[in-house]
Amino acid sequence: MTIEISNLSNSLTVITDPMASLESAALGVWVSTGSRNERPSEMGLSHMLEHMAFKGTTTRNARQIAEEIEAVGGYLNAYTSREQTAFHARILKDDVGLALDLIADILVNPTFLAEELERERQVVLQELGQARDTPDDIIFDHLQEAAYPNQPLGWAVLGEEATVRAFTPAALRDYSGRRYRAEAMTLVSSGAVDHRKIVTMAEEKFARLAVGPSEPTAPGRYIGGDFRLEEDLEQAHIVYAFPGVASKDPDFYLAQIHATILGGGMSSRLFQEAREKRGLCYSIYAFANNFQDTGFTGIYAGTGEREAGELSAVVAGEMEAMTAGIGDGELARAKAQLKSGLLMGLERPGTRAEQIAGQIFTLGHLQSVSEIVAQIDAVDADALRGYAARIMTAPTIAAMGPVKKLERHDIFAARFASGRQAAE
Amino acid sequence: MTIEISNLSNSLTVITDPMASLESAALGVWVSTGSRNERPSEMGLSHMLEHMAFKGTTTRNARQIAEEIEAVGGYLNAYTSREQTAFHARILKDDVGLALDLIADILVNPTFLAEELERERQVVLQELGQARDTPDDIIFDHLQEAAYPNQPLGWAVLGEEATVRAFTPAALRDYSGRRYRAEAMTLVSSGAVDHRKIVTMAEEKFARLAVGPSEPTAPGRYIGGDFRLEEDLEQAHIVYAFPGVASKDPDFYLAQIHATILGGGMSSRLFQEAREKRGLCYSIYAFANNFQDTGFTGIYAGTGEREAGELSAVVAGEMEAMTAGIGDGELARAKAQLKSGLLMGLERPGTRAEQIAGQIFTLGHLQSVSEIVAQIDAVDADALRGYAARIMTAPTIAAMGPVKKLERHDIFAARFASGRQAAE
Repeated sequence: MTIEISNLSNSLTVITDPMASLESAALGVWVSTGSRNERPSEMGLSHMLEHMAFKGTTTRNARQIAEEIEAVGGYLNAYTSREQTAFHARILKDDVGLALDLIADILVNPTFLAEELERERQVVLQELGQARDTPDDIIFDHLQEAAYPNQPLGWAVLGEEATVRAFTPAALRDYSGRRYRAEAMTLVSSGAVDHRKIVTMAEEKFARLAVGPSEPTAPGRYIGGDFRLEEDLEQAHIVYAFPGVASKDPDFYLAQIHATILGGGMSSRLFQEAREKRGLCYSIYAFANNFQDTGFTGIYAGTGEREAGELSAVVAGEMEAMTAGIGDGELARAKAQLKSGLLMGLERPGTRAEQIAGQIFTLGHLQSVSEIVAQIDAVDADALRGYAARIMTAPTIAAMGPVKKLERHDIFAARFASGRQAAE
Repeated sequence: MTIEISNLSNSLTVITDPMASLESAALGVWVSTGSRNERPSEMGLSHMLEHMAFKGTTTRNARQIAEEIEAVGGYLNAYTSREQTAFHARILKDDVGLALDLIADILVNPTFLAEELERERQVVLQELGQARDTPDDIIFDHLQEAAYPNQPLGWAVLGEEATVRAFTPAALRDYSGRRYRAEAMTLVSSGAVDHRKIVTMAEEKFARLAVGPSEPTAPGRYIGGDFRLEEDLEQAHIVYAFPGVASKDPDFYLAQIHATILGGGMSSRLFQEAREKRGLCYSIYAFANNFQDTGFTGIYAGTGEREAGELSAVVAGEMEAMTAGIGDGELARAKAQLKSGLLMGLERPGTRAEQIAGQIFTLGHLQSVSEIVAQIDAVDADALRGYAARIMTAPTIAAMGPVKKLERHDIFAARFASGRQAAE
């Protein structure tokens, strides 16, 4: 069972990834567009378009779309990120054709009716409210804006209440015309699927997609900054960020392993120091976020008002300690965690399809498991120390809740100015 | 590949569920104990014990436990519910023995050191704070307390700040001695596993578990009630509940199908009416919650301050409409959704192990897929109308956020008093 790739006559990429043991499949279309491709008046429009795709086509109304997929016990969903919009389904094997037909229909033939937009606008405003009521979620939007100020990459995917209130069907059509081109889409299916059948069907169903290149994406540049919102919450929700690497950077796995050792599991340095030794947090973890052309390494912690005063020194201390030396044991553990995560993900069709789409988007080609494993294995302690030192600069802090005791940004930043020098 | 069951000499049940195509496995121990088995001074102790299991044994300290599982890229976690406590791992196939050894060690040989308890207490207090900052999570604790007042089943799994502050190692040992008996535990593994090897190893590793029956669980009784907390949030987070069925009730799937038609997907009645037609909510869904001896059907909605005034009438209207008639299409869709969810879950070892443990806990024996499918298929529209009418009584409402405009409980309850009569 091997992965097959075809390019349709309109340039849409079709990839199938058959899994012999499965009776079900995951199928989706990943579109290379997201909130960073919006204009100022369009903040949140990528996400609104994702919602509106489900609200009716020239052949089906919203209720028919929902009923058809659920009639076969399938599940149709979508998400919007800063760089991608995905429409995906989980179905039993006999229903792959139906899922493909539905997804093609909502992408090729959406009607964007004014009346449906009015109703969906209310739903998205409720979604905005829900996000604001989830501090350990919305804090990442504040972080993004502080790290990437005055750039579309810094905008929230959901947009602003004011822009959402102003969207029109014409704005949806304009954005869709610019961004929903065949060339910008990848149709990926994993599981009980047949390449020839899917290509034949896709060639017909996607025939009327617009062709030609999408507008280029404006570059993103990590700047760093500070965001604080004193609020009446139980916890201070704090995210720190430092300049990292782009998703296509050769140091991608270096950054992943760095984040894993720093705060990727129960045995990681931050978990051991901040949670196990000091009891400061329930949740604390590090992560590497990567975009096409930029990225950052981040640390999230939820802590109490009093503990927030202690946290920044702990985080800075562990960041600094990473530049001093990496143990063989923790390096081997981080590699084992990334590799086993990769192998276990291979057993799930949804994860596989997602990874394939991500590789095409990022690299323009697929990577085999052995290529990825080789890249993970190639990371050594010296390279990690170098990466740890390199990112000791330009910190971003985003914090909300009882954050008065949290160290000032300039004082925190000064810790990194000296850390960086020592490492150079 | 068939499921095998053995009972160890100490009465611990061992179940293996081999999956030929997998290179990984899920393995866990499910213990028949949770917050409903606590005494008043023990509120939250089941959950604290779950945390403390990871904090050291007679042969490993907390860091060693974390490092050993992560050294093989494995993942060890645990959760506590009202009726069960689970300790489970995801590992590659060569590491099944290690996972079993670790889980046995933390269950059989925990040390509950005072010093570790002091630190973990702080972590759990942070977890309590995080839960309180997540209204669409904590509202379910308020619902549970309102639906089951003055009973352990109404208590929050995390406990109260006051009880958490008072826990001692002696209290942990006392609870553990009463509840962590071999007879109350089921060791389940799914994936790349071998029954004989696991039984042999479990016989040795679990040999020193306490034996004999656990205390009986006090019965739970759905009463119903009202909880409101006016708070400065963006959304009103509202859950309604009505008396439902126990997990072992012959009407279990009847209740599941009822909830699916009412609010189980995009084509469900509540989603179509409250979100698609009225734009009142982003999230609205119905569910059937089941315990050993009682249960409820619930509806969650997140909505705005103004919209909260309209919501109760919509919910009551859809509940009432379910008693009037069920369409063939929606009934077929609900069955398809439950069956395909079941089939897709079979492809994931973690889901399979969880389901097996649930069947043993609930029924004392396993159910085949075809038995479950037959029970789903047997549900008809008349039975659904009967169930819909039967639960039109004793509503519970739990609400937090801007809830001043939400209909009063007595007025809401009056809608159901008449609805019930009409149906009788």
